Amino acid sequence: MNPVITPSTEGAAKPLRPLGELTLRRVAIDTYKENVAYLHRDCDVYRAEGFQALSKVEVRANGKRILATLNVTSDPRIVQCHELGLSIDAFAQIGVDPGYPATISQAEPPVSIAALHRKINGERLGRADFLAIVRDIAGHRYSKIELSAFVVATNRGELDREEVFFLTEAMIASGRRLDWHERLVIDKHCIGGIPGNRTTMLVVPIVAAHGMVCPKTSSRAITSPAGTADTMEVLANVELPFERLCDIVRDHRACLAWGGTADLSPADDVLISVERPLSLDSPGQMVASILSKKVAAGSSHLVLDIPIGPSAKVRSMPEAQKLRRLFEYVAQRLGLSLDVVITDGRQPIGRGIGPVLEARDVMRVLQNHPLAPQDLRQKSLRLAGRLLECDPDIRGGDGYAIARDILDSGRALEKMRDIMQAQGAKPFDPERPELGALTFDVTAERDGVVTGIDNFQIARIAQLAGAPKVQGAGVDLLRKLGESVKAGEVLYRVHASFPADLDFARQASGRDTAIRVGEAGQVPSVFVEF
Amino acid sequence: MNPVITPSTEGAAKPLRPLGELTLRRVAIDTYKENVAYLHRDCDVYRAEGFQALSKVEVRANGKRILATLNVTSDPRIVQCHELGLSIDAFAQIGVDPGYPATISQAEPPVSIAALHRKINGERLGRADFLAIVRDIAGHRYSKIELSAFVVATNRGELDREEVFFLTEAMIASGRRLDWHERLVIDKHCIGGIPGNRTTMLVVPIVAAHGMVCPKTSSRAITSPAGTADTMEVLANVELPFERLCDIVRDHRACLAWGGTADLSPADDVLISVERPLSLDSPGQMVASILSKKVAAGSSHLVLDIPIGPSAKVRSMPEAQKLRRLFEYVAQRLGLSLDVVITDGRQPIGRGIGPVLEARDVMRVLQNHPLAPQDLRQKSLRLAGRLLECDPDIRGGDGYAIARDILDSGRALEKMRDIMQAQGAKPFDPERPELGALTFDVTAERDGVVTGIDNFQIARIAQLAGAPKVQGAGVDLLRKLGESVKAGEVLYRVHASFPADLDFARQASGRDTAIRVGEAGQVPSVFVEF
Repeated sequence: MNPVITPSTEGAAKPLRPLGELTLRRVAIDTYKENVAYLHRDCDVYRAEGFQALSKVEVRANGKRILATLNVTSDPRIVQCHELGLSIDAFAQIGVDPGYPATISQAEPPVSIAALHRKINGERLGRADFLAIVRDIAGHRYSKIELSAFVVATNRGELDREEVFFLTEAMIASGRRLDWHERLVIDKHCIGGIPGNRTTMLVVPIVAAHGMVCPKTSSRAITSPAGTADTMEVLANVELPFERLCDIVRDHRACLAWGGTADLSPADDVLISVERPLSLDSPGQMVASILSKKVAAGSSHLVLDIPIGPSAKVRSMPEAQKLRRLFEYVAQRLGLSLDVVITDGRQPIGRGIGPVLEARDVMRVLQNHPLAPQDLRQKSLRLAGRLLECDPDIRGGDGYAIARDILDSGRALEKMRDIMQAQGAKPFDPERPELGALTFDVTAERDGVVTGIDNFQIARIAQLAGAPKVQGAGVDLLRKLGESVKAGEVLYRVHASFPADLDFARQASGRDTAIRVGEAGQVPSVFVEF
Repeated sequence: MNPVITPSTEGAAKPLRPLGELTLRRVAIDTYKENVAYLHRDCDVYRAEGFQALSKVEVRANGKRILATLNVTSDPRIVQCHELGLSIDAFAQIGVDPGYPATISQAEPPVSIAALHRKINGERLGRADFLAIVRDIAGHRYSKIELSAFVVATNRGELDREEVFFLTEAMIASGRRLDWHERLVIDKHCIGGIPGNRTTMLVVPIVAAHGMVCPKTSSRAITSPAGTADTMEVLANVELPFERLCDIVRDHRACLAWGGTADLSPADDVLISVERPLSLDSPGQMVASILSKKVAAGSSHLVLDIPIGPSAKVRSMPEAQKLRRLFEYVAQRLGLSLDVVITDGRQPIGRGIGPVLEARDVMRVLQNHPLAPQDLRQKSLRLAGRLLECDPDIRGGDGYAIARDILDSGRALEKMRDIMQAQGAKPFDPERPELGALTFDVTAERDGVVTGIDNFQIARIAQLAGAPKVQGAGVDLLRKLGESVKAGEVLYRVHASFPADLDFARQASGRDTAIRVGEAGQVPSVFVEF
């Protein structure tokens, strides 16, 4: 993300001339991704500018310009009359010391607002429109309200597939693009929604052990109880300077890092800030978000996992096939080789849900431990097999067996240890993982068979228990779909580190345990590749 | 607006149990219509709750609940660890003294979010859906992001006419509804966009002088240089308790007050807070907004003014006719008698643009002053005539002459003085209005005829000059459409009270004067009723 607008690259309308200078002050308020500027009510500039409610203002200092929402105060302890206060993030964007001179003026609307209005009115937009809109979004020139309008106006069915391609292309152009100078740069991705689905941490060491280049950057959890970056962080440092990542990839063929520092598809991060609160994840936006990050990261081959199930993001095979075709169309236009696999998303993968619990499962699979979750192992081997088959020397169908050999022989574990060491390993013992010490068990109310696990509700319980902020918090599943259970037997155990968290999780599971116990014939089936 | 959620009327999902109590503190920051809660970063509750970026929180104190966006600070001068800070508006909503105990918890999403998602996905919504959505909006349970999503998802073409009726009905139900216990309660309204269009302040005294009941509440300017309430405020107090308004209407048959305190269609005020920054004013939303306010205010008969012109909100007759039919359909379903007139919106009405300048024009018309703007007089008489014809004793076509008699005889002026007196008259001399002392003139660059006046740009210049905040600021038009002008003659004079304001207005008019001078044959024509 590069929220600073440098005048040279600025395409916005000419702003009004700013008034007299004020003195910059850092206001120690964290307003998240919304820049806020604070003026005193008696400040001359505030009076003269005639700022109104919800004013968007432009702050200039140190040759930089940022946009912000204006808040007005009468408390001189926050800002005095001659001062211009900026919230924590906004202040950091200007990058100067307190006391620096600054000016403030009313912001003109971003140049792409006319295109946004055309989209709101149902028109089809062209390549130049998407470039202008995404440039303004990446430049933090859209307010939350305008971002929300864009996300809704480009929602389900509002974008045709070529528009999705234009959007993706514009999102790639909005940030940095990496070039690894390798013929094959592979990546895997899952569209999300399945707790515990940490196959990335197994697939990457397997394919890297085979010699393939896999510079994997992942996100942290946004609405889930753990992202790959959160789980990897239990085992090693994931926030590394880009140059260090390059060294690690050169030495070990792979890395497992957080992607937040790489400035890849920065518009995506901004859009996510409104998509998540709205729980909007339309096919077009999903395709643009995922493929823009992959292409910007320099990937040449991608295996994409679309899980389907009653509580997965995609609930039916026709829906999955439609999504697959959209991914394939855009990937082809971008020159990205894409292999889509549609998988079983009826329940979480593995047993643990939460960073430490998921790290435990991953390490057990790598160690070929007797308690390793077999579903996580199998899914990872199959995905790794598909990725290995991107190697032209490997025959179609042979990938799985090669992946299994690499895992069974301990070479995957060895590669994982190399990566962890290179990133800065942290002490971790999968036999004694540091789980939250406070626990409660959720038990079966009747004899029967597990006929349903609600991915969303079980994830919510893990989050309320503290995951991913509290690494040792989460849910440990002791029963999976189709398994028999007797009344009173434990279905899952919740771990937390703070009484309040435990209490929240208990209330939520009391309202809905997320696990249904019924008759054997009631287990839903899905017909998928794996 | 009644942003306080009392537990008894609350339809939202059961919230999680709140944690330990904090001490309420008023943080003197004006965040406009967005409630903000401030917690110290080291506050136990913040830690234990696991609040995340963009968290929506629920604050409870004094038996009331409000929703707010969370900001986090490390500055104990803003809030200390045991304190819960609230922005100015949010604090006022709770209505207690600082130091009062309060609790904070994560807010559950509003119950109507599922219906919002169905609308985003293009489904048609039913009556109950609109009721639920509007109830949540009026209860301040939607975030700006969700409001924006609703506004875009119900934009142009997304609502059929029955849905517009459901939305209007729900907006009426969200607030107070007045009953004047009169057979005829008349009102007039203009869809807006034409500067200087202060016919209300002439129509109301005329029809009230005839004896009709016209309890007129108006808005302040939101994006324009003056609303009726702003202009009336030059002449009299407009912020009156509801009970006082009732007395005035009983005594004088009319009032001319600001509608902001009456709690009529409160959801509308909330929606406007995102519609305005987005410049969205789709037909469905316009109809729902206007008609909900009128019905809630207890009107039985409404004359609605739709101006058309190249820089008006409605640019063509077919568009105006389509809008008229939508207004008529919804009004008929609501039992409101509606008379739509399509008028000339090619240029401002009257000469002054800005509160004092417009008050001057209004008073000159009432006084039958030789300098009274004839267009304002004519339009007001025609509108008043249409309203008078709501009286079953007046024959169709006779209204205009009756209105003219009332105005020419001085009875309208007398009624206006009664109303001003009753509301608390302010000293005002139309011969010596208190205009901003700083001025500049914009002159014609060539000989010719005025062929165009851009409503939007002339309004913008008046706003930059300080209107409506600075009452005496604005634009005084000396030439109107079709009038001859010689090079160097003044087209309009800008008044301001502050050098910076004058400078802004000068820059804007330097870029675009808003007035075009050309040949007589180039004056655009419109074919309208008046």
